[in-house]
Amino acid sequence: MSLTSTTTLATMKNTSMASLLVPLCLCFVLLRGASGLGGGSCDRIDRRIRALEPTRRVDSEAGHTEFYDERDGQLACAGVTAARITIQQNGLLLPSYSNSPRLAYVVQGKGSVGVVIPGCPETYQETSSSSQQEQEQEHDERRRGGRRGEERRRSSEGEESEEGQEETSRRSFEQSIRDEHQRITTVRQGDVVAIPAGAPFWVHNDGDGALVAIAVYDVSNNANQLDQTSRRFRLAGGQTSSERRREGESESSESETERGGEESYNILSGFDTELLAESMRVSRDTARKLQGRNDKRGNIVRVRRGGLHLLRPATERVTDEEMMRGANAGAAAAGNGVDEALCLMKLRENVADPMKADLYTPNGGRITVLNSQKLPVLKLIKMSVNRGVMRRNAILAPHWNINAHAAVYATSGSARLQVVSSEGRRVFDGELRRGQMVVVPQSFAVLGSAGDEGFAWVSFQTSDDAMNAPIVGKSSALRGMPADVLANAFGVSREEARRVKFGRGQELAIFSPKSGDRRDMLAAAA
Amino acid sequence: MSLTSTTTLATMKNTSMASLLVPLCLCFVLLRGASGLGGGSCDRIDRRIRALEPTRRVDSEAGHTEFYDERDGQLACAGVTAARITIQQNGLLLPSYSNSPRLAYVVQGKGSVGVVIPGCPETYQETSSSSQQEQEQEHDERRRGGRRGEERRRSSEGEESEEGQEETSRRSFEQSIRDEHQRITTVRQGDVVAIPAGAPFWVHNDGDGALVAIAVYDVSNNANQLDQTSRRFRLAGGQTSSERRREGESESSESETERGGEESYNILSGFDTELLAESMRVSRDTARKLQGRNDKRGNIVRVRRGGLHLLRPATERVTDEEMMRGANAGAAAAGNGVDEALCLMKLRENVADPMKADLYTPNGGRITVLNSQKLPVLKLIKMSVNRGVMRRNAILAPHWNINAHAAVYATSGSARLQVVSSEGRRVFDGELRRGQMVVVPQSFAVLGSAGDEGFAWVSFQTSDDAMNAPIVGKSSALRGMPADVLANAFGVSREEARRVKFGRGQELAIFSPKSGDRRDMLAAAA
Amino acid sequence: MSLTSTTTLATMKNTSMASLLVPLCLCFVLLRGASGLGGGSCDRIDRRIRALEPTRRVDSEAGHTEFYDERDGQLACAGVTAARITIQQNGLLLPSYSNSPRLAYVVQGKGSVGVVIPGCPETYQETSSSSQQEQEQEHDERRRGGRRGEERRRSSEGEESEEGQEETSRRSFEQSIRDEHQRITTVRQGDVVAIPAGAPFWVHNDGDGALVAIAVYDVSNNANQLDQTSRRFRLAGGQTSSERRREGESESSESETERGGEESYNILSGFDTELLAESMRVSRDTARKLQGRNDKRGNIVRVRRGGLHLLRPATERVTDEEMMRGANAGAAAAGNGVDEALCLMKLRENVADPMKADLYTPNGGRITVLNSQKLPVLKLIKMSVNRGVMRRNAILAPHWNINAHAAVYATSGSARLQVVSSEGRRVFDGELRRGQMVVVPQSFAVLGSAGDEGFAWVSFQTSDDAMNAPIVGKSSALRGMPADVLANAFGVSREEARRVKFGRGQELAIFSPKSGDRRDMLAAAA
Repeated sequence: MSLTSTTTLATMKNTSMASLLVPLCLCFVLLRGASGLGGGSCDRIDRRIRALEPTRRVDSEAGHTEFYDERDGQLACAGVTAARITIQQNGLLLPSYSNSPRLAYVVQGKGSVGVVIPGCPETYQETSSSSQQEQEQEHDERRRGGRRGEERRRSSEGEESEEGQEETSRRSFEQSIRDEHQRITTVRQGDVVAIPAGAPFWVHNDGDGALVAIAVYDVSNNANQLDQTSRRFRLAGGQTSSERRREGESESSESETERGGEESYNILSGFDTELLAESMRVSRDTARKLQGRNDKRGNIVRVRRGGLHLLRPATERVTDEEMMRGANAGAAAAGNGVDEALCLMKLRENVADPMKADLYTPNGGRITVLNSQKLPVLKLIKMSVNRGVMRRNAILAPHWNINAHAAVYATSGSARLQVVSSEGRRVFDGELRRGQMVVVPQSFAVLGSAGDEGFAWVSFQTSDDAMNAPIVGKSSALRGMPADVLANAFGVSREEARRVKFGRGQELAIFSPKSGDRRDMLAAAA
Repeated sequence: MSLTSTTTLATMKNTSMASLLVPLCLCFVLLRGASGLGGGSCDRIDRRIRALEPTRRVDSEAGHTEFYDERDGQLACAGVTAARITIQQNGLLLPSYSNSPRLAYVVQGKGSVGVVIPGCPETYQETSSSSQQEQEQEHDERRRGGRRGEERRRSSEGEESEEGQEETSRRSFEQSIRDEHQRITTVRQGDVVAIPAGAPFWVHNDGDGALVAIAVYDVSNNANQLDQTSRRFRLAGGQTSSERRREGESESSESETERGGEESYNILSGFDTELLAESMRVSRDTARKLQGRNDKRGNIVRVRRGGLHLLRPATERVTDEEMMRGANAGAAAAGNGVDEALCLMKLRENVADPMKADLYTPNGGRITVLNSQKLPVLKLIKMSVNRGVMRRNAILAPHWNINAHAAVYATSGSARLQVVSSEGRRVFDGELRRGQMVVVPQSFAVLGSAGDEGFAWVSFQTSDDAMNAPIVGKSSALRGMPADVLANAFGVSREEARRVKFGRGQELAIFSPKSGDRRDMLAAAA
Repeated sequence: MSLTSTTTLATMKNTSMASLLVPLCLCFVLLRGASGLGGGSCDRIDRRIRALEPTRRVDSEAGHTEFYDERDGQLACAGVTAARITIQQNGLLLPSYSNSPRLAYVVQGKGSVGVVIPGCPETYQETSSSSQQEQEQEHDERRRGGRRGEERRRSSEGEESEEGQEETSRRSFEQSIRDEHQRITTVRQGDVVAIPAGAPFWVHNDGDGALVAIAVYDVSNNANQLDQTSRRFRLAGGQTSSERRREGESESSESETERGGEESYNILSGFDTELLAESMRVSRDTARKLQGRNDKRGNIVRVRRGGLHLLRPATERVTDEEMMRGANAGAAAAGNGVDEALCLMKLRENVADPMKADLYTPNGGRITVLNSQKLPVLKLIKMSVNRGVMRRNAILAPHWNINAHAAVYATSGSARLQVVSSEGRRVFDGELRRGQMVVVPQSFAVLGSAGDEGFAWVSFQTSDDAMNAPIVGKSSALRGMPADVLANAFGVSREEARRVKFGRGQELAIFSPKSGDRRDMLAAAA
C-alpha cells in the first residue's frame, strides 16, 4: 500500500504532508528512467492483478530461495523482481552481486551481512601475532600516522626479496595480518538492508532459528544498464543441487529465475583454470576449487570447521555509528576524507520498532516510513520501504501512489484490498495473506480493510521518496477542493459534500473501524 | 517551432545564447529517460509528418474534449499526447489526475483552476459563523500563532465527545469551518498552466464565453513509471454521455483516448460501495452518488444552484505573489518552512503579453519563452513552452531543436513549414493552420514563413530548458565556423561564404520578409 | 576492459578506490535512462560476443568512414554505435551534428577540430583592414568595454542606411570584420575529443599523414530523445560518392549506417531553394550550392585554394588554458559571466602520455583514466574513457564493470580476453587485435592476458564516472570478505583462502606475468 509513507510524518508533527513533498524536485531527478520499462508492461495490469505466491523454489544445502513469478505482469509493470530467502541456522548465503540494486526486509531471525563496496578500504583488520592490546596500539598508531606506520613496521621486518617487491609485500601481509575485510553488519527481524547494484554481499545466519528475508530487486533502476532481469553474478559456489517447480511453471522461461536455476555456475568457473590460477597466484588445484564445478551445496551452504570466525567488535549488536567510527578511522588512515561518504554509508535500518512509527492511530494502527531522508543510501538505490501494522478491521484509507509503484508483502494477518485502474475498473479485489505479494501500480487507487487477525505488511516502493495522495481524510485530495466543486461534481448537496470532505476528521492513512467493531478491537489490542 | 526560445533572450540583452545553455549540465540531468520511448517510435517519422487535427471528440454536458490522434507517429515520437478542451460558460471540468505531467495553454476565455498538491495545507479557509472581519482577525491570529490558535478555539467550544476524539474534531470542523481548500488560480487567454503528475485538478469557466485550452501530456516523462499512455484517473463523474468519431478512427484502439471514452468511470466507482462509505464515514447512499454510475453528464458538467461559490480574495485577478503570501501564511502556520517550496510553487504564467516578449524583431515578430528559469515548477514537469507571433510573410529562421521535441499548435493565422530529417529528406512541407498541430522532432531542421494573415503559435517542448540552434543569423551554427571551412564545404568562394555567414546580420529567430513585402508589412503592422 | 579505470588512481596515491566511488551518488543521477534500451538487447549477448571489425565502408574524396555493425547485438546492448574515420592529408570532414553525444580517440595523425556550441560567442575574430597590432588593441578594448567598443567603432563609420538597421549592421560586419568564429581545437594522436549532442563540428587534417580516429556514439544517452540510432545531420556536402560493403552485409538494413550511405543529403538540401535563399539573404544560385545536390565529393573533401586559412594563435599547439583565456575575454565582452561554464568547457584531453598514467605497474603496464572529474564536459556526455597499455604476457586482472558498459578498441598488439556472464558462461574467449572492438557488458566478469607484442587499447564507457570492481588484488571483492567466509564458500582451508585473498599483494588492475615470463618481459621493456 505504500500507504501514507509520508503522509504520516506530517500528521504526527501536526505539519502538512508537504514537507515530505518538497524533495519532489530532487527525487524526480533521481527517479528511474522507467518509462522505457513501463512501455508495454503495465498494459496487462489493466486486466487483473492477483495475490502472488512464490512459484519456484531452489534448494541448497542450508536453506532455500523462493522466487515470485516475474512473468506475472504486475512485477514487470513495477519493474521489480522478488524472492524470499530462508537460511537455516549456521547457513551461509554465498557472495554474489547483481546488476540491480535491492532491498531486503528481515522477516524472521538474525544474522551477519557483509556488503563489499568495491574500492572501499578493509577497515576490519586483525594481525596475526598481535595480542588484543597490540592491536589497539596499532590502531592508534594508524589513526595517527595513516598507513605509514604500517609500512614502516613492514619494512623493518627486513625480509628477503625472493620474487620482487610485490612478493615481499605479500609475504609481509601473510605474516603480519591474519585477516582484513570490510565491515560486517548485524541484522535481525524488522531490519531493512540496502544493497547497491554491483556490490557483492554474503549473509551468515548466526542466530538460533531460520533467517527469513524478503528481497525486492529494482531492475528498471537507472543503475542497471544491462537488461530487464535481475541477474545474480555469484562469486562462489557450484551448480544448485536441486530445484522444485510449483504451479505448473513452464519450462521455456528465459528469465533470471531460470538462470538462477540448474544451469548456473559462479563467474570464476567461466574463466580458464590456468589463467585464473595465474591471475590469482594460486595453484591450479585451488583455482579449480574456486570454480566449484563439483560443488553440490548450492547457493546457501552450511558453515563447517566449528562456526564462522568473524572479526568484529565485542558487543553483540554495535550501533552503526560505532562501526562507522571504526571505519572512519580506517578511511582516515587511508589519508582520504572524501570516500567516507559512500564507504561509511549506513546500509541497515530497523522499521519494526513500534516506538519509531511515523504514523500512529490508536484505534487503527501504525506505519513506519524508510526513505532516503532517513537512510541516505536509498538515494542511490532509488527505492523506499513502508512498514505497516493494522488492527483488526481497521481501514486502509483510499489513496494512490504519486510517484512510485509499490510491491506489498504481507508479513502477518490478512487484509481485503481493492485496486482500481484509470477506467475505474477494479483490477484486484481479494485477500492478501501472510507470505503473499501484490503490486499497487503508480496512480492506481487502493482501499482496504484488515482481517480479523489484523494485518502487517512491508511495502517496497520504486522511488527513494515515494509519496501518496489520500483521497479522503486529512490532507486529502477531496479535502483540498472547495465543497461547492464537490457538490457539483458528485451531484450532491453542499452539506453532503462537506460530510464527504470532513467525515474522517483528522484521521490519516489508517482509519479506525466502524463503531460496532471498536469494542472488539479494543479488547484485541495488546 | 520551439524556435529560438532561448536564442531570443540572448539577442535582446546583447548577450550570447550561452547564458541559456549553461543549465544544460543540469537540464540534461533532468531530461526524460526518453530513449526508452524513442526506441522505435521516431523511425516512422522519417517518412512523413502531417499537420494534425483532432480525430476524436467526447461530448459532455457543458463542453467537449477533442483528442489528437496519438497513433499518428509524430506524437508518439515526441512522447506526448494532446487534447483540446472546450468548457462552456459556467461549465466545470471534473477533478482528475494523470500519470503524466501536463501543460495547458488557454487559447480563449477565462476561468478558475484548482490544482491540489497532495499533502499541502488547505490555505483558503472560511469559518461558518464568522463575518469577513472575524475572518481577517482569525487570519492574523493564525499568522501569529500557527494552528495553535485554531485548536485553542476549537477546544474552547467544549463539545460533547460522542464517538471518541476524532469525532469531536470532525464536529468541531463542521461547525467552526464552513469550508477550506487549497488555493485557486485564475486563468485567462494566453496563460500557461502546469499540472504535475499525480496532482488532481478541476477547472471552472466563470467567464462570459467558452473557455478553450490546448493541453499536452508528457507521457515519456520520468515522473511517469506506468506506461506510455496518458491515463486520466477521474475522481468524480460518470460514464461519458456521447462520443463521436472522426476520420474513420478504427475501433480497435486501446489507447488512452479510448479509455477516456465510453467505458470509463471514476475511480471511486471501482471500490465496493459499502467499504467506500465506511472509509469516508458517509451513508451508503452518498457513496453511491460519489461513484456516479448513473451520472450521464460526462466529464464537463454544468454548475447548478446559482453558480459556484468559491472562496477567494476580492480582486478579480490577484497576482500570484499575493496568493502566495496568503498561502505562505497558512504554510507558516503549519509550523513548517520547508514545504513552502512546492506548495507555493507558481503554476501559471502568461506568455501572450507582447510587453513580456523575450525576442522582438520589429519587422518580423516576437517570441516569449517560458522555461524553468521563469516558472520553476517546469523543472518538475520537464517541459517548456514558446509563444510566437509572426507578421505576414516573416521568415522563421532555419534551426533545429538541440535537446527536445516540439509540439507546435497554431493559435491563429497560418505558416508554411518545412521539416527536414537526417537524410536531408523533407518530411513535412505544408501549411499549419489555426487549430492544427505538428511535431518538430529533436535534431530535425525546420524553416518556415508566415502566411498573409501572419502566424501565431504555441510550442510545447519536452525539456524544461529547451534550446535550439539557428543555422544562420546571429549566434548560428554557420556563423560559428570559419568562412574558409564553409567555402571548402560548400564549394563556394570565400566571399560567398562570408555572405552566407553574415547575410542576416544581427537578426535572430524571426527574420524580416524580403524588401518587396516590407511596405505591405509596415502598412499591416498595428 | 574499462579496466580499473579508477581503481588505479587509488593505488598510486596509496588511497583507497573509494574516493573515486564517492561521485556514485551523483553519477547515478547522471546515468542514462538505459533501462529502456537494454530492455531486450542484452539478452542476445548471453550467447556469444565476438571481436568486431568494421562491416561497411563509405568512401569520400579525401578519406573514408568504416562503420562497425550496430546490429551485432553487443553494440546494441551497450547502447552505442562506433565508426573509424580516416581523413587524408589536407582533408576536411564536413560539419555535421548528431542526436547522440560522442567521444572520439585520435589513433593517428593530427588536425584541427571546430565544435560549435550553439549560442556561444564567436571568440576568434579577425577584422578586415586591421593589422595585427590593431587587432590586439581592439582585443584589449573589448576586454575592457565589452561589445560596446565594437559597436562604437561600427557606428562611427557613419554608413548610409539603405534597408534599415539590420542592413547597416550587416554591411558594417562585412567591412570591419573579415571573419569571426568559435574557437578551434588542435588534436593529435592520443587525444580524446568530446562532442555534445546537437553540436555541429568539423575536422581538418593539417598534418603530414592520415588522421585516423575511432568514434563511439552513446545513442542511449538521455540527451537523445529521438531514437536508438545515431543519426548524422550534415550541414554541408552532397550525396556520398561510393560505398563498399563487406562481409555480406544485407541490403535491408534501415540503420543509421545505412542512412549515412547513398541516400543521404545535407539538411539544407531538404528546404525549398527559394525559401532557403530568402532566409539567408543570399542568391538562389548560392543557396543551390549550399544544398549540394550535385556535389559528389562525399563527407570528407579535399581542401583547395591553397590550404585552409584558419585564424588562430601563433603557437603550434596552444594549451586549452590559453585558448580558454582568449575565449574568456570574448565571453566577458559579451557581458555575461554565466555562459563561460559551457562555452569555455574543455573538449579535448590527451590520454596517451605515459607520464599522465593513473596506474602504473612496472612489470605490467599502465592505465590512464579520463572521467568527468578530469574533463567536466563528460558529465554532459555521460561517457568516460580508459587508455591502457600492457606489456607482453601481462595479465588483465579479473574484474567487472559496476555501472557502465565498455566498448574496448585495440589500438595495437593483441590480447586474449575472456568475458563471463551471470550464469558463469564464457560468452567471449578469443583474441582482440588491433582495429577490433569488443563490448564488455555491465556486471560481466572479464580476465585477459596480453599477447607477445603487448596490448594497447582505448575503452569507451557508458558512464561519466565508470567504476569497476577487481575480483582479486588490492581493494578487491575477495579482499573485502573475511577469510573464513571464503574458506566456507569455496570449500578450501583457511590458509588457502588467505592465499586467494592476498596472492597478488598490492597489485591492482594489471598484474605482472608469471616469473618465467619476467626475464623476457624485462628484456622487451623499453
